[in-house]
Amino acid sequence: MTLHRFSPQSYFNTIGRHAAVLHIADGDSVVTRTIDAHGADADEAQAAGEPNPMTGPFHVEGAAPGDLLSVTIDSIDMTRRQGWTRQGLAGNVVDPDKVASLPAREKILWDIDRNGQSVSLRHAPPALKGWSVPLEPMIGCLGVAPDMGQFISTATSGPHGGNMDYRGVRAGVTLYFPVSEPGALFFLGDVHAAQGDGEIAGIETSAEIQFTVRVVKGKTAAWPRGEDADHIFTIGNARPLDQALQHATTEMLNWLAEDFGLDHVAAGHVMAMFVRYDVANVFNPAYSVACRIPKSALPQGI
Amino acid sequence: MTLHRFSPQSYFNTIGRHAAVLHIADGDSVVTRTIDAHGADADEAQAAGEPNPMTGPFHVEGAAPGDLLSVTIDSIDMTRRQGWTRQGLAGNVVDPDKVASLPAREKILWDIDRNGQSVSLRHAPPALKGWSVPLEPMIGCLGVAPDMGQFISTATSGPHGGNMDYRGVRAGVTLYFPVSEPGALFFLGDVHAAQGDGEIAGIETSAEIQFTVRVVKGKTAAWPRGEDADHIFTIGNARPLDQALQHATTEMLNWLAEDFGLDHVAAGHVMAMFVRYDVANVFNPAYSVACRIPKSALPQGI
Amino acid sequence: MTLHRFSPQSYFNTIGRHAAVLHIADGDSVVTRTIDAHGADADEAQAAGEPNPMTGPFHVEGAAPGDLLSVTIDSIDMTRRQGWTRQGLAGNVVDPDKVASLPAREKILWDIDRNGQSVSLRHAPPALKGWSVPLEPMIGCLGVAPDMGQFISTATSGPHGGNMDYRGVRAGVTLYFPVSEPGALFFLGDVHAAQGDGEIAGIETSAEIQFTVRVVKGKTAAWPRGEDADHIFTIGNARPLDQALQHATTEMLNWLAEDFGLDHVAAGHVMAMFVRYDVANVFNPAYSVACRIPKSALPQGI
Amino acid sequence: MTLHRFSPQSYFNTIGRHAAVLHIADGDSVVTRTIDAHGADADEAQAAGEPNPMTGPFHVEGAAPGDLLSVTIDSIDMTRRQGWTRQGLAGNVVDPDKVASLPAREKILWDIDRNGQSVSLRHAPPALKGWSVPLEPMIGCLGVAPDMGQFISTATSGPHGGNMDYRGVRAGVTLYFPVSEPGALFFLGDVHAAQGDGEIAGIETSAEIQFTVRVVKGKTAAWPRGEDADHIFTIGNARPLDQALQHATTEMLNWLAEDFGLDHVAAGHVMAMFVRYDVANVFNPAYSVACRIPKSALPQGI
Repeated sequence: MTLHRFSPQSYFNTIGRHAAVLHIADGDSVVTRTIDAHGADADEAQAAGEPNPMTGPFHVEGAAPGDLLSVTIDSIDMTRRQGWTRQGLAGNVVDPDKVASLPAREKILWDIDRNGQSVSLRHAPPALKGWSVPLEPMIGCLGVAPDMGQFISTATSGPHGGNMDYRGVRAGVTLYFPVSEPGALFFLGDVHAAQGDGEIAGIETSAEIQFTVRVVKGKTAAWPRGEDADHIFTIGNARPLDQALQHATTEMLNWLAEDFGLDHVAAGHVMAMFVRYDVANVFNPAYSVACRIPKSALPQGI
Repeated sequence: MTLHRFSPQSYFNTIGRHAAVLHIADGDSVVTRTIDAHGADADEAQAAGEPNPMTGPFHVEGAAPGDLLSVTIDSIDMTRRQGWTRQGLAGNVVDPDKVASLPAREKILWDIDRNGQSVSLRHAPPALKGWSVPLEPMIGCLGVAPDMGQFISTATSGPHGGNMDYRGVRAGVTLYFPVSEPGALFFLGDVHAAQGDGEIAGIETSAEIQFTVRVVKGKTAAWPRGEDADHIFTIGNARPLDQALQHATTEMLNWLAEDFGLDHVAAGHVMAMFVRYDVANVFNPAYSVACRIPKSALPQGI
Repeated sequence: MTLHRFSPQSYFNTIGRHAAVLHIADGDSVVTRTIDAHGADADEAQAAGEPNPMTGPFHVEGAAPGDLLSVTIDSIDMTRRQGWTRQGLAGNVVDPDKVASLPAREKILWDIDRNGQSVSLRHAPPALKGWSVPLEPMIGCLGVAPDMGQFISTATSGPHGGNMDYRGVRAGVTLYFPVSEPGALFFLGDVHAAQGDGEIAGIETSAEIQFTVRVVKGKTAAWPRGEDADHIFTIGNARPLDQALQHATTEMLNWLAEDFGLDHVAAGHVMAMFVRYDVANVFNPAYSVACRIPKSALPQGI
Repeated sequence: MTLHRFSPQSYFNTIGRHAAVLHIADGDSVVTRTIDAHGADADEAQAAGEPNPMTGPFHVEGAAPGDLLSVTIDSIDMTRRQGWTRQGLAGNVVDPDKVASLPAREKILWDIDRNGQSVSLRHAPPALKGWSVPLEPMIGCLGVAPDMGQFISTATSGPHGGNMDYRGVRAGVTLYFPVSEPGALFFLGDVHAAQGDGEIAGIETSAEIQFTVRVVKGKTAAWPRGEDADHIFTIGNARPLDQALQHATTEMLNWLAEDFGLDHVAAGHVMAMFVRYDVANVFNPAYSVACRIPKSALPQGI
């Protein structure tokens, strides 16, 4: 149960079986730093290039193909006083005939107030004077090396995780990833200071993160799973949203059968009444949908 | 400000310019009854056929094409002690290669406990013994006569509303529909005792509903809008989910510009940080997505 | 086997159970006229409004719910010397970030040369001087009254047909529509002088059409079917294209089983090797995909 | 202009910057062999694993990021007398409620008759006795190393090409791929003896292929382009089909502007009248759509 401190010297723009930067044991924790989506670090120095440079990979001793890697996000702390977004909305979230009326996607600066736990526009338009946003940091891109020796761009996501941009990935959450390579090879980066559903925009910034890993032997999954104090969830990554939702729903059905004693009939009743679908992102090459169920709705809890 | 009591004698399976069953004034309220999605009334008598027989239409004096009809749902009360769902999940919410493993879609009965404000399976599988669901009634299908003299099946939805199956349509909510016919011609029905996101299943039952109408002159909308105490929202109806989301997002952008003084730049900031997308249904011919924003996130509130 | 001549005096913008304009017998033929998508007739006079005003409905004696109506397009002749398109491409056929670069959708005139059997731009840009297009008239919108007493806008399509904008609907083709109302109630209009796949644009014009109807008793279909000398085809109407394709493929599987003695195993082999998917339109509220198979690939032909 | 003969000893299941198996010059030709989608070679020996083992990569001297690699398929010859398909249809090409009726996806053998230029089922069901299919070999999976150092599974496709399963990739066709790595690193495999649109199934087999490479300096593309004697085409790879079609259409617009002197107005006219959309595959993780235009429709030809 060692607590490692790791200072990254270089970053990866793909998730794959890159050489591990640190070997850690089952149960260990790591405190490390991430840089922003365009590669600017805590000092606003350009430390790497786009997209979403990753810290890692961390090799977890004992994790092998066919296992799950559990990663608990213990904390996410801001390491600088500013973040940025793109102005306006991406063309794919509005009707095609609305696209031409959207504002240019200029880079906009936000001030992060760690004491006040809020974020505000550096140059607010008149209509938003005095307007601010609660500081709710989340990790946009994280995951493990994918199967088949693939190296996949951190712009996108898949069964291995990746750029899911799900606002539910905050401190206190535990994620479960299917292991495809010895040591799992865990990567993380692309922290947002705050973001709504769909990642219309997330406030891109650098961060210090503590996480704790555990190896779940002999159990696997087709898509990332997770839980916090109150919910379990699964994440599907694909386009269109319909297919992301299908992946997440199928994964939840399987999980409820494997670990909660609910066959598809019983699971259908629970899901019918309690499912919440979170539209994590509708921006990246693969969209992400989380299928979430309150633990209180499960017959024996978890 | 009259309170009407209306007892329906017949029902419609299309929404269109049928002859009005009652003429009411701007500001009036109506207490009426709806039957379930298959046409069974409060006494379990077969009062009409599938799909989703509608009570109405109510002609609202003064409502004309180019206006909005505001409908506040004052209350939804259960009128019988049972409801039903289909067992399992519809094939379109899981991966295609999972479909063959889904249970047969048998009709399942639920007991509604109005005192305990809960709903439970009449014949629960062992894994769900003692399991129940909070009673949270909602209106599955409601809307006004569509444009161009169309008559549209109550199985589906569109700019006029219809079978949106959004769990957010509960007591306390006000909806705004674009008026296409003189008198608007408001219909409602298909109440569910409870339902999660996506309408994997809703507990189909009969109900007594009180609603209040107001005519908003000279203001219109492309898609249904709504609000409750804490949120404003817009609803887009289409397939795939991506397009439903595009409609809802575009409508919200337009609303924020028209009524809240937020140009697309300012609106983009607010939406980026505060939007919640609700997946209302992924079951009907048109899927429905709500784009929701907390009033507290709007600069001057509403 | 009467040949009727029918001169329309009024037109409909919805397909539904409007009062029939002519009663005809099984086997009869009709020569009639259609006006263009915006309502201009052969003399360029405004005879009706948008969208796609329909000639009809024609009541076919003996056609009843549960039957198919067969409609053979005997001929489509041009009745004026000009047609029009919108310039450029609709936003939904290009990537969202390309939309802003598309030209404004101005109305563009084309000259129809019936002797030369070609169509050319009245004001060709320099790059297209001398460029012309073969005259290949097709019917954009045709079908029968839909089920449940619906009246559906001629802007869209469904199981009843409607605005499918399929370039395969030319002289020599026979279509089969599922009958929902007594007499079937057949409508037609929206002729294009020429069009590619997807209806990026069709040259909108007026026409004289001869068609012949037959009632196929006791046989029905879920989606329009058709055939010409060399092919059989089915048409699915929905969004996204994936779902339109699913409808068309399912309908073809059913047809091959019902009429050609091919169970799903045998049909799968035939479809795997010989299917052609035509993207009929990617412009209307419902997209259309045709699933087409050469008759020569069917074991006994048809 | 050397003609190389290359006998592969090993194969790759990802497309990426693997070590080149052969260095060739601009203008050179190669004769080589491919094994089937499951790794069986000309002797039915298991030479590699799933999915779609690739022959290559071939390093083309002088090809650099920012160039196009042109690959002409000179010939595709069968190297064994049998191929296989999966029986039935994949669940994603039919309506979800049809999936449960589909036959099990057993492996089915086909006999390839090189003299008769046809393929037939080894064990034909009674309805298909005597039925055969023209031998029309095509390459299912081919492309160049993707950008950013990615290694991408040969089950899927992207801007780099990959598993597009387009029946248009036959002898006589020239493809153009955007180069991302020095030498381009060209891979090929997954030949089908015959296949319809959509890859409902392709007859998987081994082959001998001759191809010729050329480097097009200083010209690039966002998606694969191609041409044969009569047509030019672009290929988009994505889900849903709508997005694949958007990519292909956008690429064609750009190509027409860059090389054919057609601005978006002129290109819009040409595409409106002459575009053919080929649904290449609706089976793989990314679907593929080709946007095709006859050279005769282009004002100066090509």
